Amino acid sequence: MEVTLLAYTPAPLKVIYTAARTCYSARPPAEIWADEVPEEKMEDLVNRLIQQGHHSVLEHVSFTLGIAGISRSCLAQLTRHRVGIAFSVQSQRYVRLDRPTYVTPPSLGLDGERRTRFEKAMAEAWQVYNELVSAGVAPEDARFVLPNATTCNLVLTVNIRELIHICELRLCPRAQWEIHELFLKVAAEVVKVAPFLKRHLVPKCLRLGYCDEPESCGIMPHWRELQAQGRLPNPVSRLQDNG
Amino acid sequence: MEVTLLAYTPAPLKVIYTAARTCYSARPPAEIWADEVPEEKMEDLVNRLIQQGHHSVLEHVSFTLGIAGISRSCLAQLTRHRVGIAFSVQSQRYVRLDRPTYVTPPSLGLDGERRTRFEKAMAEAWQVYNELVSAGVAPEDARFVLPNATTCNLVLTVNIRELIHICELRLCPRAQWEIHELFLKVAAEVVKVAPFLKRHLVPKCLRLGYCDEPESCGIMPHWRELQAQGRLPNPVSRLQDNG
Amino acid sequence: MEVTLLAYTPAPLKVIYTAARTCYSARPPAEIWADEVPEEKMEDLVNRLIQQGHHSVLEHVSFTLGIAGISRSCLAQLTRHRVGIAFSVQSQRYVRLDRPTYVTPPSLGLDGERRTRFEKAMAEAWQVYNELVSAGVAPEDARFVLPNATTCNLVLTVNIRELIHICELRLCPRAQWEIHELFLKVAAEVVKVAPFLKRHLVPKCLRLGYCDEPESCGIMPHWRELQAQGRLPNPVSRLQDNG
Amino acid sequence: MEVTLLAYTPAPLKVIYTAARTCYSARPPAEIWADEVPEEKMEDLVNRLIQQGHHSVLEHVSFTLGIAGISRSCLAQLTRHRVGIAFSVQSQRYVRLDRPTYVTPPSLGLDGERRTRFEKAMAEAWQVYNELVSAGVAPEDARFVLPNATTCNLVLTVNIRELIHICELRLCPRAQWEIHELFLKVAAEVVKVAPFLKRHLVPKCLRLGYCDEPESCGIMPHWRELQAQGRLPNPVSRLQDNG
Repeated sequence: MEVTLLAYTPAPLKVIYTAARTCYSARPPAEIWADEVPEEKMEDLVNRLIQQGHHSVLEHVSFTLGIAGISRSCLAQLTRHRVGIAFSVQSQRYVRLDRPTYVTPPSLGLDGERRTRFEKAMAEAWQVYNELVSAGVAPEDARFVLPNATTCNLVLTVNIRELIHICELRLCPRAQWEIHELFLKVAAEVVKVAPFLKRHLVPKCLRLGYCDEPESCGIMPHWRELQAQGRLPNPVSRLQDNG
Repeated sequence: MEVTLLAYTPAPLKVIYTAARTCYSARPPAEIWADEVPEEKMEDLVNRLIQQGHHSVLEHVSFTLGIAGISRSCLAQLTRHRVGIAFSVQSQRYVRLDRPTYVTPPSLGLDGERRTRFEKAMAEAWQVYNELVSAGVAPEDARFVLPNATTCNLVLTVNIRELIHICELRLCPRAQWEIHELFLKVAAEVVKVAPFLKRHLVPKCLRLGYCDEPESCGIMPHWRELQAQGRLPNPVSRLQDNG
Repeated sequence: MEVTLLAYTPAPLKVIYTAARTCYSARPPAEIWADEVPEEKMEDLVNRLIQQGHHSVLEHVSFTLGIAGISRSCLAQLTRHRVGIAFSVQSQRYVRLDRPTYVTPPSLGLDGERRTRFEKAMAEAWQVYNELVSAGVAPEDARFVLPNATTCNLVLTVNIRELIHICELRLCPRAQWEIHELFLKVAAEVVKVAPFLKRHLVPKCLRLGYCDEPESCGIMPHWRELQAQGRLPNPVSRLQDNG
Repeated sequence: MEVTLLAYTPAPLKVIYTAARTCYSARPPAEIWADEVPEEKMEDLVNRLIQQGHHSVLEHVSFTLGIAGISRSCLAQLTRHRVGIAFSVQSQRYVRLDRPTYVTPPSLGLDGERRTRFEKAMAEAWQVYNELVSAGVAPEDARFVLPNATTCNLVLTVNIRELIHICELRLCPRAQWEIHELFLKVAAEVVKVAPFLKRHLVPKCLRLGYCDEPESCGIMPHWRELQAQGRLPNPVSRLQDNG
C-alpha cells in the first residue's frame, strides 16, 4: 500500500482561521486573510473550535491523495464514507488485470500451509481470469472470478471535517487492519503539511475520554465503567443501560 | 410557530432493525422483514447501535413536517444543516407578503417601550414594502425592506441520523431560542410516532456525559471539570488545554 | 437477484405536491396538505417541476428496498452513489459465508467450457475460504479469497431525486448489465406504488432528447449528429468539438 | 459585493487529469501525477468528461472565496446549495451591526421617490436596532428588525462539480439578479486560475442546447420549440406535453 499526498488547499491553518474569524467579525474575509497572525494564535482558535465540535469551518480545507495497492475489501469499506469525500477508482471494467496483484492478510503468516494455500488460490483465480479473457469474455465479466484481495488504485480527496470523523472510526483498534493502516498513512501524510492536525486525527476514544464501542480495547476505559465508578454522570440516552 | 407531522417512513423501528440485522445475517432482508420480532427486542438492538455511534442504519427512516410561522433568522440557521435533510421553503420572490406577519422575540416583553418600538418598526417595514410593490417594484426586490422577523413556511424532511445530530446542537440551551423551540416541537411530533427516539433526541451533553461547549449551562459538568477532578481520562486531543 | 419494496414515504405524490405548493403559496403546509386535490392536478405540477429540473422537492419522498443476491462488483458500483441514498450491507467481516453463493455473468452461457471453468473457480475459492476458516483464520481475512461474484444482501433507501439521477445513468445500455438489471427491478417496484414516476425513471437520453455518452447506442441520436444536421444549437460548452 | 479568491487546490487541471487517468490505467496515481503531460492533452480529456456528464472527477478540486457585502436574501438562496460546498457566515448573533450596511436593488433607481423611501426605511431599521441594543436587548434578538437588505460576509468553498451545477442555475437570466452577479464574479475569479473552466461555467441552456425552464429568455430556443419543429426527438419523459 502506497499513500502519496498529491495536492491540498494551501495554508490550511490560515484558511480555517479566516473562515472562523469571518463568523465573529465585522471585517470582510479578504481583510482577515491579509492579517499577519502568529501561527500559535491561529492554532489556538482552531484547536478550540475542534474541541467544541464546531467542525463546519474544517470543510474549507481538502487533501488529495494517490493511493495504490489496497484490496477491493478495503475499497468497499472506504467508499462507505460519503460526505466531504471524493473517489476516482481504477475500474475493473476498463483496466485489464492480467497479472496477479493482491493484498495478503498478515494473519496468514509469511509461510506455512495457510499462506501457501492462499497463494495457490490467487494464482488459480488469475489463471481463470486470463483464460476467460482469452476466450473472448469481456474483462468486466471475467473479473467476477477475481478475489477481494485484488489490489486497486485510487485518487481520494477528503476535507478535514470528514478526515477527523473517519480517523475516529478507522484508527480504532476494532477497525479492520487494512483500512486502519490506510488511515495511519493518510494521517501521516496530512500531518506533514498540517502539523496542527496531529492531535485531532485520533480514534474517537481519545476525543471522548472513554470508549463507546461494545468493549474497550484498553486504551481508554469504557463509559459503563466510568459510570459505575460514579466518575461520569449518567446521560439520559444511556440511562436504561445502567442496570 | 406550528409544526405538523405530514408523513414518515412507516414502522420506523422495524425498518431500522431490518437494516441492522441485514448487516450481520446470512438471511435476505425481505425474510428478516417478515419476522415477527417483539418491539422490545428491536428497541434493544437499535438503542445499542445508537449508543455505539453506529448511526448509518438511522438514515433509512425519514420524517416530513409542515412548519409554519418561523422567522427568516430561524430559517437561516435551519438551512445550515445540509446532509440527510430537505427543505421546500415559501419563496419571497413568488409570494407577495402584503400583510405584516412576523415573530416577536420573547425578550421584548409583552408590552413596554421596547415592544412598542419593535411593533412600530414592523408596521413601517410593511408599509414601505407595500408602497414599493404598488409603485411597480417586483416583490423580489421590495422584500429587501422586510425584516428578519418576517415569518415563513416550509416543508422539512429529515432522517433520524441527522435529526439526532441536530437535536444534539439545537436542544442545547446555548442555541438560539427560536430554533431551540422549533426542534422541541419537531422532536415532540416525532416521538409521538417513534417513542423509542425519546431518549436520543437530546442535547449533546446528555449523550456525552459532559459539556464540550465553551461554558457549561449546568445540566452537565464541563469536561475540563471532570478532568481536573481526575474523573475523565485526558484525551490526546484535549491534552494541551489542561495547563 | 431479488428486490423487495419494504417501506416508503406514504402518499408520495401528495408529499411532493405539498412541498412544491408551499414554495409558491401564502398558506401553511398543513393546510395545503389537507386540501383534496385531484390526482391529475398534482401529477401535472410534479411532472412540470421534474421537466424543468426543479428537483429539490423530490427529496421529500424515499423508498426502502430489500435487495438480495447481487455481486460484490455490483455493490461496488452501487455504493458510488453517495447523496440522498443510504445502505446497510451484509458484512463479510461478521457473516461467515460457508456455502458458495455467487452471481454468474450471462455472457458465460448456460454450459460449455467457459461456464465450467467459471464454476470450478467458484468451487475452489470457497474450498480455500472454508479451509482457512477451519485453520483458524478470521472470516474477515479468509474472505480475501472470495471472488467479486460473491453475492451480498443489503437494505437500500433512496429518495426520488437521487433515484431519477441513478436511473439516468444505470438504465443506459452502456451501464454494466447487473446494475442495469438491479435498477430495472428497483424502478419496477417503485412504479407500482408511485406510477407517476414511470416516465421519469429512464436513461438520460430519454430525458435530454439526445445521447451525450461517447457513442450512441441507437435509442436516441448523439448530440454531435443533431448539431451537424443543424437541428440542435451549438452550446458554448461543446463549441470546440464541432471541428 | 466583493469576491476574492483566497485559496484553491493547486494545479486543478492536473489533479482532475490524474484522477480521471487513474480510473482507466494500471499505473498508480503517483506515477501518473509525475508524468509531464501537455496542457492541451489534459484539457482535451477533461472537456470530454465534462461533456459526457462524468463529473465525479471534478470533486477533487475546490476553490475558497472570500465574499463581502451580499444581502441576507442572497445568502438565503446561496445556502440552499448543500453538496460539495461549505460556508462560514458572519453571525448576526455575535456581530453587532451598529451601522447601516445594506444592498440596494438596482430596480429602485439612483434617486427618485422609491429610492428615497427605501433609504429612509433602512435608516429607521438601524435606528430601532441600535435603540433596542442600547435598551439591553441582545443583538441576536435586536436583529429581528434588520432587513433582508442587510449585508453579510462569508467564506465559501466549492468544488468544481458543484460550481458547474450552480452556474447552470444561477447564471440563467431567470435567476435573481444578486446571486446571478455573485456567480458571475465567482466564475471570473475561478477562470483566472483555471481557464479551462471558462466554457463550462455557463447557464444550463448553453450546456443542453435548449432551454428547459418554463419560458426561454431567447438565448437558446425552448425544447418545446425544437420538438415542434421536429429537430429534437421526443423524449419519453416529455412525451405527454406535446399536445
